[in-house]
Amino acid sequence: MVLERINGPEDLKGLTKEERDTLAREMRENLIQRASLHMGHVGPDLGFVEATIALHTVFDAPNDHLIFDVSHQTYPHKMLTGRREAYMDPEHYDDVGPYTDPKESPYDLYSIGHTSTSVDLAIGMAKARDILGGKEHVVGIIGDGSLSGGMALEGLNVAGEMDSPLILVLNDNDQSIAENHGGMYKKLAELRETKGEAKDNIFRGMGLEYLYEGNGNDVESLVRIFEKAKSFKRPVLVHIFTRKGMGLPYAEEHKEEWHWHMPFYRETGKTREEWEFGEDLSDRTADFLLRKMKKDPSILVITAGVPGGMGFTAEKRREAGERFIDTGIAEQSGVTLACGAAKRGAKALFFTSATFLQRAYDQISHDAGINSLPITIVVNSASLFGMSDKTHLGLYLSSMANSIPNLFVLAPAFKEEYFAMLDYSMEQRERPMLILAPSDVVEDELPVEKDFGKPAFRTVKAGKDVAIFAPGSIYGEGKAAVELLQEKYGITATLIEPTILSHLDEECLQTLKKEHKLVVVLEDGILDGGLGEKIARYYGMDEMKVLCLGLNKEFYDEYDVTELLKEQKMDRESIAEAVVKGLQ
Amino acid sequence: MVLERINGPEDLKGLTKEERDTLAREMRENLIQRASLHMGHVGPDLGFVEATIALHTVFDAPNDHLIFDVSHQTYPHKMLTGRREAYMDPEHYDDVGPYTDPKESPYDLYSIGHTSTSVDLAIGMAKARDILGGKEHVVGIIGDGSLSGGMALEGLNVAGEMDSPLILVLNDNDQSIAENHGGMYKKLAELRETKGEAKDNIFRGMGLEYLYEGNGNDVESLVRIFEKAKSFKRPVLVHIFTRKGMGLPYAEEHKEEWHWHMPFYRETGKTREEWEFGEDLSDRTADFLLRKMKKDPSILVITAGVPGGMGFTAEKRREAGERFIDTGIAEQSGVTLACGAAKRGAKALFFTSATFLQRAYDQISHDAGINSLPITIVVNSASLFGMSDKTHLGLYLSSMANSIPNLFVLAPAFKEEYFAMLDYSMEQRERPMLILAPSDVVEDELPVEKDFGKPAFRTVKAGKDVAIFAPGSIYGEGKAAVELLQEKYGITATLIEPTILSHLDEECLQTLKKEHKLVVVLEDGILDGGLGEKIARYYGMDEMKVLCLGLNKEFYDEYDVTELLKEQKMDRESIAEAVVKGLQ
Repeated sequence: MVLERINGPEDLKGLTKEERDTLAREMRENLIQRASLHMGHVGPDLGFVEATIALHTVFDAPNDHLIFDVSHQTYPHKMLTGRREAYMDPEHYDDVGPYTDPKESPYDLYSIGHTSTSVDLAIGMAKARDILGGKEHVVGIIGDGSLSGGMALEGLNVAGEMDSPLILVLNDNDQSIAENHGGMYKKLAELRETKGEAKDNIFRGMGLEYLYEGNGNDVESLVRIFEKAKSFKRPVLVHIFTRKGMGLPYAEEHKEEWHWHMPFYRETGKTREEWEFGEDLSDRTADFLLRKMKKDPSILVITAGVPGGMGFTAEKRREAGERFIDTGIAEQSGVTLACGAAKRGAKALFFTSATFLQRAYDQISHDAGINSLPITIVVNSASLFGMSDKTHLGLYLSSMANSIPNLFVLAPAFKEEYFAMLDYSMEQRERPMLILAPSDVVEDELPVEKDFGKPAFRTVKAGKDVAIFAPGSIYGEGKAAVELLQEKYGITATLIEPTILSHLDEECLQTLKKEHKLVVVLEDGILDGGLGEKIARYYGMDEMKVLCLGLNKEFYDEYDVTELLKEQKMDRESIAEAVVKGLQ
Repeated sequence: MVLERINGPEDLKGLTKEERDTLAREMRENLIQRASLHMGHVGPDLGFVEATIALHTVFDAPNDHLIFDVSHQTYPHKMLTGRREAYMDPEHYDDVGPYTDPKESPYDLYSIGHTSTSVDLAIGMAKARDILGGKEHVVGIIGDGSLSGGMALEGLNVAGEMDSPLILVLNDNDQSIAENHGGMYKKLAELRETKGEAKDNIFRGMGLEYLYEGNGNDVESLVRIFEKAKSFKRPVLVHIFTRKGMGLPYAEEHKEEWHWHMPFYRETGKTREEWEFGEDLSDRTADFLLRKMKKDPSILVITAGVPGGMGFTAEKRREAGERFIDTGIAEQSGVTLACGAAKRGAKALFFTSATFLQRAYDQISHDAGINSLPITIVVNSASLFGMSDKTHLGLYLSSMANSIPNLFVLAPAFKEEYFAMLDYSMEQRERPMLILAPSDVVEDELPVEKDFGKPAFRTVKAGKDVAIFAPGSIYGEGKAAVELLQEKYGITATLIEPTILSHLDEECLQTLKKEHKLVVVLEDGILDGGLGEKIARYYGMDEMKVLCLGLNKEFYDEYDVTELLKEQKMDRESIAEAVVKGLQ
């Protein structure tokens, strides 16, 4: 077995052609085996095995710098840089994270999980190398899907003006998470068909040198083209064509489903039963929007490269037809396109994951906010119960959004309330609204409101002395704390579900002063910039005590949510104890 | 006079060639006369006179939609849409704002002041038109400088996939605010030289149809090309070449200085004496950085299209040489490029205006924050004393930045403190730091600190009962309030200069509890997400009263700062009165 001899890139240097081919087969076999037992990315890594061998053969990492975009394609890289056990031995599968991480290895330069950053990071390293007198190679690796992101395109333009060496590898597998979107992809296809000779080459158009290699899963061809790239004195883009999902027939055929996958049976590709989950709120969102579309021709649904985030499978996208737009990985375009559509009379909804909406702060403020355009934005995972990799945290989103004037940030705790908010937001013509889809399908505990045009903190249960505010996905913990207070301490607390995080329901706050001494605000995210701080400010000159319970403003990583809640004193027991203490 | 007969675009329809030419001359003359007496944009508008006549001749606004990028080139548009008096009669010069504004005219579709948005807004309007069954033309107008912004490039890619009519007009005057930056501009030059025939056309590469017109200041040529564009059934980009500053020889020659200008003498172009200002903090920042560069080869200074914002004139850029990078209007690239450079050992500083940094929220968080990369970001105008047009407000920036973990947001009140922070930030290797350059050069009132590695609230003057926190550019108002309290009410207040807005100096806050009952926090921006709310949260369970004085979370426009302070009860008298009341 060749793989067992590879403890680092230096062990690749003397390999024969046959050994490299064997190595590729062994790596792919281990990747498939692991994927069948451990959730994770599948397609991107299976396609990038040979390219990774070639990169580590031609370049001298970590002296040379390899920068991976998104870094979900770095399982082969990790296998070749001292971490192969994590891909060969089920006992060690959890030794590594899903993305590059400098804490994990000196061969990993950055913690990365968002797309389209590698070009700019590479330019920065090359510029620093130049002014510091270094001579090493800098290699930025980017997938075709990531090219649709504006910052990648900004980077190509900046790189095109440079006058020193920089190598950009475009890993083109003709697929984003879902299919690619954008006019450039027709031209990429022409480049593949003509072996790089097609006219109107956008890379040359941006001022870059350009090389093409169609055999992106052949180590020898790749070694040759990367060696050639090393000889360039100025930035060169090496366009290689790889097969996403190679080696797993169903993954090659159904690329979208196999970008990332739950554990499965190798023979059939069927998901293992214990990892099968039923319909969730995302699927219901797609169905809700499709039903609404049938009745109303003015509805336009937009996403930026993550249609599955709200249940828009390929079939449901077809059903929506021209009223579903995927901008590619382009959140800025997605939000501002929605603004233009709203201005012209459409009911425009944009969705993505909370963490990716960070790319569109300015568009929400400058385009939607200033112009009071009634777009609806829906995100999932804006919650500590959501994705927990540090590059994908949605814990900061409501605080970010709370600094944008004119934007309502709605945080439904219940299922029908969520759909009522969606409906209200899409029908109103006053302002942009951001809805944080709950993490779980919680049945409504209150009659469903229809009007979200005014900030409303809803009283679920009236009590006295202490009021607990529990918005969105943290509602369950707040409710449990209220029950515990009653049962264990005989304290009848008021339970409030604030449906909005960005604005205060001053009437409610004013009323609470009569029979309450303490307000506890739970944050489904960080403390800074959250609802709790606004309430603390509101009561700043009053006798009312305010206790904010949320996360400290830090980056968290691969946490267990139960443990995190305990650590941060946000679990029901800690909440109840804090109340008892606060009332003393 | 032809111009006097033009009350709206309909009056353009029957004009002869001679009348159009006369109209263009009259408009240009009035624009120049106004510019000589009234500050504003000069070059962009002088170059776009003929194109505006042609657009309003060929298209039927407001039924057809004309969307102007940045909208600083819309003075001619305003002249032709019922607002000519504002350009002809000095009494009426202030009747109009510098950007398009739907409140001003039905011919203005959006409030716009940031770049690179017009392509996406146009796509959105075209999509909405299609699903709603409209037939009108949608025209997005964008300058060559704005093309370097990622969202414009995202938009071109999205547009390239559309299958219905959309017209994009590229107003190419071979200049951004300063010179253009990026590899694409070599190709744009080739397109100009070959009348649109050069190969590797990025617009065609993005899937767009393409037309070229070199006579961008000839109404008849433009009318012809726009008429031709109307016949396309799918998106077409019309590339026109115009002369920025046309009609004002010194503006044509010195395009950067004449992008925007103070009132001047027409004969010489010399700024009128009453509008001449001395050296300011921006100039000193450039000098400080250049001095530092001389001693240290590892310093890299980066901006995104606004070199003048920190005093980097053409001469100073030459002095900095390869260690000064302008990414074009590409804040995302600027920040992430700085991250790459910092990783490779450079001391990287990025600067722009506060309002434009909104484009880089995700890059500061995901690239700099998570990776603890020690980049320095400096912005100007993050203050209510800064730019006051609603599209350029920096009032929200510190609240936005406060939601990013691991980032220190420093707000110097004094001159040498500011430079000490710059120096500290560039030398430290711990984390990203954002420094809000003060609006004014205030001499230091305390010995200058050298270490900003720990959150510090500095006591300028010790008092009792009440402590007033006055950060950054609002320091002067806080200080004046403290003096007023002493003189008028005999109250000896403590005056605190918090050098950081993102984190608490808990030792200071703890100490204040001993002899203080009230803390007043002034915000140089909005209340939401500001320092005051953090302090209110900190004292939430204590006896300490906290009064936050800042702006409500709204968009403000062309305000008078003295009046705004009074309205919002943030002026010295209101502060003093609030303290007296709060201590009762």
